[in-house]
Amino acid sequence: MGLIILDDLPELVIAEGIHMRAVTAESLTVAHVKIAAGSLLPEHSHPNEQVVNVMEGELEMVVDGQTHNLTRGKVLVLPSNVIHSGRASTDCLVVDVFHPAREDFKGSSFDGYPGE
Amino acid sequence: MGLIILDDLPELVIAEGIHMRAVTAESLTVAHVKIAAGSLLPEHSHPNEQVVNVMEGELEMVVDGQTHNLTRGKVLVLPSNVIHSGRASTDCLVVDVFHPAREDFKGSSFDGYPGE
Repeated sequence: MGLIILDDLPELVIAEGIHMRAVTAESLTVAHVKIAAGSLLPEHSHPNEQVVNVMEGELEMVVDGQTHNLTRGKVLVLPSNVIHSGRASTDCLVVDVFHPAREDFKGSSFDGYPGE
Repeated sequence: MGLIILDDLPELVIAEGIHMRAVTAESLTVAHVKIAAGSLLPEHSHPNEQVVNVMEGELEMVVDGQTHNLTRGKVLVLPSNVIHSGRASTDCLVVDVFHPAREDFKGSSFDGYPGE
């Protein structure tokens, strides 16, 4: 709680080229995610509702077979358990928000998505 | 749900110089807030837990009497019902996240904070 310095948090590697620092509040998680151009987010799902906010760059996301090209000003809301994947068209900075909090983001390691 | 274009949402004026577009998902609200330099966010509180993510600029926030100077890389977690206020030192872009969703941000107008 209170003030959190992102650089003080452990950096989690979600997939090759996808590095994240995650703030876990009581009810939600806010993840600041850096994605290198060309990186792939494997197809996966989770019970947490997610809101994807691309702040820099262009991120292609596929949700239930539909492709969205996300840039700043476009926000993607992913309902609980929907299958999604992604590919960074450029280097990206993304703020991902989850409810409930992501228990799997709380530690200093990440076990990986099913697709990896 | 799905893809949301921020510019298609109504712009809510939270206080003079503080303009917001708010995405309401099922369980949470993500507000993209533009704050002009010098603008004041009056002292207020709400039952919603809040996570403040300054993406551009410098935002001074006072929480329970303690001052924090927020810039990119610093994230502020505000527990339910804590009293807080703010002042933009520069033009700012802030991504504010709330749980539960802010019912008062759902419409096209905002009734204002108690301090106004």
